[in-house]
Formats: sequence, structure tokens, C-alpha cells
Amino acid sequence: MLIVIITPSNASNKFYIFANMISVVIIGSGNVAHHLTQAFLKSDSVILKQLYARNTAAFSLFKNDVAITNNITSLEEADVYILAISDDAIADVSSKLKKENFVVHTSGSVSMDTLQHQGKKGIFYPLQSFSKDKAVNFDVIPFCLEADTEEDLQKLEFLAKAIGKKHYRITSEQRSKLHVAAVFVNNFVNHMYKIGNDLCNTYEVPFEVLLPLIEETSAKIASLSPQEAQTGPAIRNDKQTIARHLASLNEQQQEVYKIITKSIQNG
Amino acid sequence: MLIVIITPSNASNKFYIFANMISVVIIGSGNVAHHLTQAFLKSDSVILKQLYARNTAAFSLFKNDVAITNNITSLEEADVYILAISDDAIADVSSKLKKENFVVHTSGSVSMDTLQHQGKKGIFYPLQSFSKDKAVNFDVIPFCLEADTEEDLQKLEFLAKAIGKKHYRITSEQRSKLHVAAVFVNNFVNHMYKIGNDLCNTYEVPFEVLLPLIEETSAKIASLSPQEAQTGPAIRNDKQTIARHLASLNEQQQEVYKIITKSIQNG
Repeated sequence: MLIVIITPSNASNKFYIFANMISVVIIGSGNVAHHLTQAFLKSDSVILKQLYARNTAAFSLFKNDVAITNNITSLEEADVYILAISDDAIADVSSKLKKENFVVHTSGSVSMDTLQHQGKKGIFYPLQSFSKDKAVNFDVIPFCLEADTEEDLQKLEFLAKAIGKKHYRITSEQRSKLHVAAVFVNNFVNHMYKIGNDLCNTYEVPFEVLLPLIEETSAKIASLSPQEAQTGPAIRNDKQTIARHLASLNEQQQEVYKIITKSIQNG
Repeated sequence: MLIVIITPSNASNKFYIFANMISVVIIGSGNVAHHLTQAFLKSDSVILKQLYARNTAAFSLFKNDVAITNNITSLEEADVYILAISDDAIADVSSKLKKENFVVHTSGSVSMDTLQHQGKKGIFYPLQSFSKDKAVNFDVIPFCLEADTEEDLQKLEFLAKAIGKKHYRITSEQRSKLHVAAVFVNNFVNHMYKIGNDLCNTYEVPFEVLLPLIEETSAKIASLSPQEAQTGPAIRNDKQTIARHLASLNEQQQEVYKIITKSIQNG
């Protein structure tokens, strides 16, 4: 990659213009690696130089499109090395990379310092929950980016723009909080669906009856704040309805109902 | 409305064919009344004969399209009288209606027996959360229907089909449980968004970063069961991550986090 550095009179405003290509090596064979590989292969601005995994079987889909290796000491030269591996493996695998490399990981909950190689570090975190079988539209997925220098940040922005539309500069501290927030709006929301589903099963009502309400609830939050969107017996402090609801729940569901009702009422 | 009754040899299978029109009076001026009025006015199969409310100011939008009254003793004749009023008012208002009338209400949490008039009763409950300013697409809203006779049920199905696409026969008992389930998948889900939003505000991350994840989480549930869709530290029993998350929450958020985590782990 050619880099042209333009330094205007105000040095704090300096920015970098890259040539129209950036080269990448992806390390890992999980869902994130899979979807990033597909996206990079489609992009005119990214040269995907190599895929690495200990077990390369998962790469069979890509074997005609990109070089594949299971030898971490024979990685190609590239502008960015993307570790798309499990959180626990980041320290160990990164320690095997050369100090000349710019290495980023894709995890929401691991700090940048966890990268153990001696060179430049960064984060390239697509905030979404990935499943291998489900197509991913990177146009709507926010990339949370972090690096030590403006130049490295702009490299990651170039990469994010090559396959997507939204990117944010997010510190490791912010990203760790965002990860907690994601647990609430994803994992915990899904558990609310689970309880709704259990209630439907118990009373032989098809869960699909609730799907339009579920969709509307999530769509609403794009235009209303959660405070404005809040309705229901808890916010109205409708004690009669709350008592009737509690009477039809099992003990564990009651616990959840009571705590969330209290939390809604405390604001 | 003309009714042709066809009784095949198997009498339990009898069904009713209505002429291609059904007439309706709507009682109430809230969000549900508003959206039903708009939908009935557009339908070729529904004659909206009259709107009633104590205060008719809310009907100004419709004053050129339908008769309006604030006198409950002068309601027009109609096939169905729809009470789209607050739960608390259903008993009182229904007691003022004639025993010849077929009266239904639109509430998710009030039993059919709460209707106090002497005649035929039913439920016509569109399961959605309505806001006056937001257009409603009845094509995707499920109508939960209940009545004492097959004939009355088919009248309500005719009405539901006239403005929408999905309807279900749901008993009062099932509907009350569905209402609890709706609290989980709507009100409580929205509170998860609220906590996510609060965390973003505290750490100065734009909440919009989470919107694609929110959308994906709700979309996923249309094709995966909530059990299959569950991910995150709770289901993995990832104690380190859970401890780190708890450390970044306030006391109330911790309570919610712990109870839901426990509930996820108990399955």
C-alpha cells in the first residue's frame, strides 16, 4: 500500500490518503473470519492475501480464491493482520506474529493491550451477532475501530469503508461497556422472547402471534428513545394487572418480572 | 348484513357465509379507535356507520366521512359494536348498550365476561402497540378473536379479513396469558433497550451503534427458536466476563443482570 501523508499547517488535523488498495491476512476460521473473507473477496479495494487457521478444512469454500496456510510462521506480507479468533486465543496467537505487523482483533470484550506481539495494535470489531449460515450485510453493521495512531485508525477506516458503511472510533474502555450494553439488548432481550415463548407453549398459543409486536418494538427504538417508547403496567404502576400477571407465572418468571418492573418504575 | 346458513350433513362443521358487507359502530376515540376507523373507511367490505365518544373532538379528522355522536342512546343499528376504550371503562359503557347488539371489545387483558350488556359478546383484539401518530399496517397485525358462537366468530373473522390478514381464535384465558407474554417481549424488552441506552450515555457511546444488533436480534426470532438463538456469557457460563460486566453496572442494573443471567442458566 502506498501512503501519501498530507500535513496541513494545523498538524493536529493531519490526515492520510492511502492508495486505492489495502492488503489483509485473516487469522481464524470462525463465523467472523468467514463473513469478513466473503466481504473482502468482493471488495475492489482489498487484497485478501491469505487465510490462516490451524485446521484449514473450514476454508474449503475459498480454496480457489485465496492462499491458505496452517503454518503461522509463513504468513504473507500485508498491511493489516486480522485476528478473528476466540477471545481466549488472542494473547497466544498474537504473540507469534512479527513486530513489523499491524495486528488487530475483532472481539467486543477483549482490550487492545491483550494483543501480545511487539508491533502496532488495533481493533476491528463488527458489532453484530454472526451465524455462519446466515448472510451478513456489512452495510448496516457498525465497525468499532481503535488504534494507537491516526494513521492506523485511518487504515482501519479505509478497510471498514471497503466493505461497509458505518464505523466509529471507540476506545477499549467504551467498547467493554458497549459489550455489556449488547448483552442487555441482545442476549437478555432474547431471554425475554424465551419467556414469552414458554408462556405461549404452556397455554397453547402460537408464538407467531407475538412476532409482529416483537418487530414493532425493535423498530420503534430507531425513532423513539426507550423512555418515550415505554408502555405497560409497570410504568403505569397498574398494581391490579401486575398482581394478575404474577399469579400466572412460575417462580423464576416471577423473579424476573418483579425485578424488571421495579427497575422500570425506578426509571 | 344478509346471512346464509349452510348446514352440511355433519352439523359440527356448519359454516356461515355473509353477504359481502358488514356494518360497524366504533365506540371510543383513542389510538385503537383511530386506526380501526381509518382501516374500516378504506375497506370495501365494511360499512362504518357511526363513531361514538363522550368528547367527539378527536374525530375531527373523520367528520366528513362518517356519522359522529356523543349520545350513547342514539347509536345506529349495526352488525358489530366495537368498544375501543380503556380497560376500566368497558364494564360501564357496555352496560348502556342494547341487548340486541353484538358487542366486542379490543382489550388484551379484559375477559369477555366483563362486557355488561345482556346480548352477544366477543373480543376483537389487534395485538400490537399503537401510537396515534404512527401509521398502522393491519396486514401484519394478528387479530385475536373470541365469541360464544361459531356464527359470531365468523363475523369477527370476516371483519378481521376485511382490514387485515392474520386472525386467531383465542380464549379469554389464553388472551390473558398472551398479554403477560406481550409484557415480556414488548415492555421488558424495551427496558433492556433503556439500560443499554443508559450505559451508552454513561460512557459516551452513541446508542445508534446498537441499533443493527437490536434489529438482528428481533429478526432472528422469526426463524430460530429463542433457545437456539441464545448466545452470550450467561448461556456459556463465562464467569470471568459476567464478573467484569457486573463491575461496570450500577446496583439496579446489577440486580437485573444477575436475575436474568440466573434465569438463562436455569433454562
